[in-house]
Amino acid sequence: MSMNNLGIVKRGIVRADAAAVAKLARFGVATVHEAMGRVGLMKTCIRPIYAGAHLCGTAVTVLLQPGDNWMMHVAAEQLREGDVVVAACTTDNDDGFFGDLLATSFRARGATGLVIDGGVRDVKDLTAMQFPVFSRAISAKGTVKATLGSVNIPVICAGALVNPGDVVLADDDGVVVIPAAIAQQAADAAEARDANEAGKRKQLAAGVLGLDMYKMREPLEKAGLKYID
Amino acid sequence: MSMNNLGIVKRGIVRADAAAVAKLARFGVATVHEAMGRVGLMKTCIRPIYAGAHLCGTAVTVLLQPGDNWMMHVAAEQLREGDVVVAACTTDNDDGFFGDLLATSFRARGATGLVIDGGVRDVKDLTAMQFPVFSRAISAKGTVKATLGSVNIPVICAGALVNPGDVVLADDDGVVVIPAAIAQQAADAAEARDANEAGKRKQLAAGVLGLDMYKMREPLEKAGLKYID
Amino acid sequence: MSMNNLGIVKRGIVRADAAAVAKLARFGVATVHEAMGRVGLMKTCIRPIYAGAHLCGTAVTVLLQPGDNWMMHVAAEQLREGDVVVAACTTDNDDGFFGDLLATSFRARGATGLVIDGGVRDVKDLTAMQFPVFSRAISAKGTVKATLGSVNIPVICAGALVNPGDVVLADDDGVVVIPAAIAQQAADAAEARDANEAGKRKQLAAGVLGLDMYKMREPLEKAGLKYID
Amino acid sequence: MSMNNLGIVKRGIVRADAAAVAKLARFGVATVHEAMGRVGLMKTCIRPIYAGAHLCGTAVTVLLQPGDNWMMHVAAEQLREGDVVVAACTTDNDDGFFGDLLATSFRARGATGLVIDGGVRDVKDLTAMQFPVFSRAISAKGTVKATLGSVNIPVICAGALVNPGDVVLADDDGVVVIPAAIAQQAADAAEARDANEAGKRKQLAAGVLGLDMYKMREPLEKAGLKYID
Amino acid sequence: MSMNNLGIVKRGIVRADAAAVAKLARFGVATVHEAMGRVGLMKTCIRPIYAGAHLCGTAVTVLLQPGDNWMMHVAAEQLREGDVVVAACTTDNDDGFFGDLLATSFRARGATGLVIDGGVRDVKDLTAMQFPVFSRAISAKGTVKATLGSVNIPVICAGALVNPGDVVLADDDGVVVIPAAIAQQAADAAEARDANEAGKRKQLAAGVLGLDMYKMREPLEKAGLKYID
Amino acid sequence: MSMNNLGIVKRGIVRADAAAVAKLARFGVATVHEAMGRVGLMKTCIRPIYAGAHLCGTAVTVLLQPGDNWMMHVAAEQLREGDVVVAACTTDNDDGFFGDLLATSFRARGATGLVIDGGVRDVKDLTAMQFPVFSRAISAKGTVKATLGSVNIPVICAGALVNPGDVVLADDDGVVVIPAAIAQQAADAAEARDANEAGKRKQLAAGVLGLDMYKMREPLEKAGLKYID
Repeated sequence: MSMNNLGIVKRGIVRADAAAVAKLARFGVATVHEAMGRVGLMKTCIRPIYAGAHLCGTAVTVLLQPGDNWMMHVAAEQLREGDVVVAACTTDNDDGFFGDLLATSFRARGATGLVIDGGVRDVKDLTAMQFPVFSRAISAKGTVKATLGSVNIPVICAGALVNPGDVVLADDDGVVVIPAAIAQQAADAAEARDANEAGKRKQLAAGVLGLDMYKMREPLEKAGLKYID
Repeated sequence: MSMNNLGIVKRGIVRADAAAVAKLARFGVATVHEAMGRVGLMKTCIRPIYAGAHLCGTAVTVLLQPGDNWMMHVAAEQLREGDVVVAACTTDNDDGFFGDLLATSFRARGATGLVIDGGVRDVKDLTAMQFPVFSRAISAKGTVKATLGSVNIPVICAGALVNPGDVVLADDDGVVVIPAAIAQQAADAAEARDANEAGKRKQLAAGVLGLDMYKMREPLEKAGLKYID
Repeated sequence: MSMNNLGIVKRGIVRADAAAVAKLARFGVATVHEAMGRVGLMKTCIRPIYAGAHLCGTAVTVLLQPGDNWMMHVAAEQLREGDVVVAACTTDNDDGFFGDLLATSFRARGATGLVIDGGVRDVKDLTAMQFPVFSRAISAKGTVKATLGSVNIPVICAGALVNPGDVVLADDDGVVVIPAAIAQQAADAAEARDANEAGKRKQLAAGVLGLDMYKMREPLEKAGLKYID
Repeated sequence: MSMNNLGIVKRGIVRADAAAVAKLARFGVATVHEAMGRVGLMKTCIRPIYAGAHLCGTAVTVLLQPGDNWMMHVAAEQLREGDVVVAACTTDNDDGFFGDLLATSFRARGATGLVIDGGVRDVKDLTAMQFPVFSRAISAKGTVKATLGSVNIPVICAGALVNPGDVVLADDDGVVVIPAAIAQQAADAAEARDANEAGKRKQLAAGVLGLDMYKMREPLEKAGLKYID
Repeated sequence: MSMNNLGIVKRGIVRADAAAVAKLARFGVATVHEAMGRVGLMKTCIRPIYAGAHLCGTAVTVLLQPGDNWMMHVAAEQLREGDVVVAACTTDNDDGFFGDLLATSFRARGATGLVIDGGVRDVKDLTAMQFPVFSRAISAKGTVKATLGSVNIPVICAGALVNPGDVVLADDDGVVVIPAAIAQQAADAAEARDANEAGKRKQLAAGVLGLDMYKMREPLEKAGLKYID
Repeated sequence: MSMNNLGIVKRGIVRADAAAVAKLARFGVATVHEAMGRVGLMKTCIRPIYAGAHLCGTAVTVLLQPGDNWMMHVAAEQLREGDVVVAACTTDNDDGFFGDLLATSFRARGATGLVIDGGVRDVKDLTAMQFPVFSRAISAKGTVKATLGSVNIPVICAGALVNPGDVVLADDDGVVVIPAAIAQQAADAAEARDANEAGKRKQLAAGVLGLDMYKMREPLEKAGLKYID
């Protein structure tokens, strides 16, 4: 076992099942996160660069060095239709690692979006392209091409572990990572949860209280809740 | 006097006068804050979840525990037409305490919006519902229902003291709290200030300088301002 | 040489060449920043108050005191057609130093926008006016007029040195400062860079890899990059 | 009722009972906070300026304006033996509102320390004087004396409501506010809790598990905890 | 494969080789991090609660829920001589999950320290005990025991992946995680690096320049460095 | 005039007068900052790595690239007795750009300390060496030597403009920059201020109020201050 995971590009990654990915794409991040048992969320600092951005795809992972986007170009070659690039950095760095030229390249290679624990630029062009990007920062600061990182190694991106091939789902609520091995299971659980919510919404809209619908009155009383006037 | 303010729901709160609330709703946060003598603002970390969100209503307060939204359901029962839920937490916590199901319930019970020193989710749905929410964070992270907080006790929300029944006004500029006892007085003062601003705006648009309009030249000179070429 | 730079208004500043400013206005912040050799950017905390805000003009600089916007009124008198007000503060302070009345005045005097390392308010009105503002915060908190700062001295705004008369360019990607003396040179370099990008974009859109277009394969191999399957 | 709470100095404040203050001074912040039912803590950003700083006294409150420490001098006159100055600001501001001269004055007037949601300076001298200060920042930045705040009105300091006369207790763990009316009750509860902890510490030191001492095994099993090998 | 990793305690974990742990304990975090190829560091927000705190041991991992330290008690039972507790939380939360009672219990069970991406309290007592703790915050805020997390599952703590049994090394420079499988290899590499540094230090102390010692002059010239007078 | 300031080393810099530097070294940062008219302070994020660290010397400036400390070695050659290295970075980056080896080299070349808007490591060794360092972060993260920055160009470090040869003074209160041209004037003003403070301290210690000593009662009354009982 090697200590060092830098300077590596893994080519033959196993992607999550396409049908599971397609099914997951129908649900929101909050629903899938709940369906999975509340795991796999990235930190809330990762935000869409334009309102309504949405993506779901299989992760091609990139480990960047600060101020250096060389590995983004290496990653482009590894992309297939339906992939999402997930970029982490060896340290906190908000430089603009990505802009409209790379977006053009990534899209031409099949990518459907980018999640990056760092900065991006050309926001106006990316918005015009409707290329969904979820990032920690927006920065015009350019980057060099001088130091190796890696492509398709496991990375920790904004507090979440992402293995190449995992499903990444992102919308206005944030970003959730679904391990490839449980993608179908998570999609099914999301579907069940979603169906269940429709009925609840109807009742609540009619004025039924969650207190009654979820049968909370007894446990609240047991916990010691007191009403005063 | 009890030391502990947890586990309490106060039912019979006194709400600010409805006419005063209606009048305050006509003005912006900056105007009302100025009219009140520059007090009552929440910290700037509380932001609308969609551009243009706006609310004005009487506060039903909630004290949450971290990662736990049980008290939101308890609060729903205490809502009346025109209320705004104001939720604080016993510690800093950005979890998604609130989403579209609770919004549906709150709206059905009469609430016109939410101000929360914490996180919310289902932003896309909340935006579609045009349910105004002002929060510190957006997070898909779910919460449990295990530990008691309180409803309708005085809370400190984002640095501002909110008593149940106070008026809460929020727009793109932030959130201001108007104590119920001075709601009418604040509304009148806001009206006077607003009327006064129209005349100033006209002059400034015509090129009159604030230096002259506000008669600042003499005090500036006294303070020692020097012009150099 | 005086130690103290407070309480000073410089009147006869030298503005960057108008043709260079007009040319710079055609390019984005990222392009100009690259063309200049990656210098002159403000920190990423400075953001537009509405999506799509854009400005390019010559700087009239203001040094504010915390919680005090007196110098904004002093600056108004120094404005000429095509100026941008660049406001720094002697300390970090997010108060609302600027709102729709000052915007009305600034516009009447010829200003095309504001960049401020501080807070602003009346965001709804400013958006309606389409008066571009780039700020660190939005805050309804009012300010006093009690303590002297300066106008048209060199200031450090969000990490960038701005001399009066320099060109300030801002868009969705951030804010860049172009010293007056190199405005034309920067504009020409930006034009060259922009022209060059069009060709690259075309190739990348056709699926050509940056690896090949930029001839990166050899340097990557030399640096030790290893492909594994 | 006046809307405005600025420009006021309240002289005849009621201080918490001296015996209760003395008793509270024997316990740590964590103990008292627990004994009171986990309320009254300031935010964790307030830290001692030197390791081991500790204070307990009755609050003389100050509301400052950003960059302005005029009210600190006004507060000095209101101090009595055993008081602690608690200073809040109308906005977030880290300027150095306080240094060794004010500390000398405060001490001469009887104060035993300072809690400030802002900055202080002369840290070396304050440490040499062993004058305990709990602040949000350390800053050499000076302040002016130009705008009124207030003394001895209720303030919100780092997220906690402080009324003049309340007990303020601070140590390495943070700052807790004990309302004057329950000072004795809180002191007694802290004493009981403290006594109780000694026994627990002994057991735990002997290797007894909290799982057994607190009888957690059954509730953990009920909650669904599973042991795997 | 289960989706959910909550509510689990793994008992039979494999710890890194004791000799390797002992050897690693002789080196600093910066040395080991370099020796491993610059991987495995936690984020810089994790700091020692007292100057000079230092620890090296095998990880028993804990996944906490916000405001809830129930799992800390469950973890105590899993400790063996030489372990370090590494606690992560399902969300960002600075509450005081740990204090002197738990430290007493952990020490009695063999633990040599704690690394926690959260808050701790009783800092004075922990310092007196010389129980090394590395945390993100200090907070007196108490926690409940109501919701399950897990013990000895892989966790992401302050941006680093920690598997139970991995070596955790922490000192004034931060915290590094050494996977159990490469502990010996990392210890050997650290030793080599450390030996190498002694010679360099001697040369540098004698006034030899790094420019010459590392033979940087030629690559700097190639990169285009220009000296001007 | 060149647009680009990267890749440059200026050798023949003019240092502030040695006597002025020696005199400035006798005063604290707060005193000198006040004496200069409250200008020249770095942001409060720059902190000493050990309590009591203190430095005063002439600046040799370094502009670093993120994750890259190559220029530190270039700077070492430019050092003379009494210099202080002031390092800025082209972007926010907390990596460990500096450790005990560079400290050994810098000291051997005459440097008396470091101020860096970035991270450092080997804190234990640097403390043992009593090599004063003021930094924004502590991080064990190593850096590469791949991309050019510059030495002895004007830099903006933590919000302050530093020209090579300026005096840099740092203590527990922060860091202040004194332009070389006014070093003597600033030293004299600091001396005057310091002498003046001794008298004030004596009076305040005797219980005289600042209200009386500074004759504040009349201006306070004019400003509208009201005393209530």
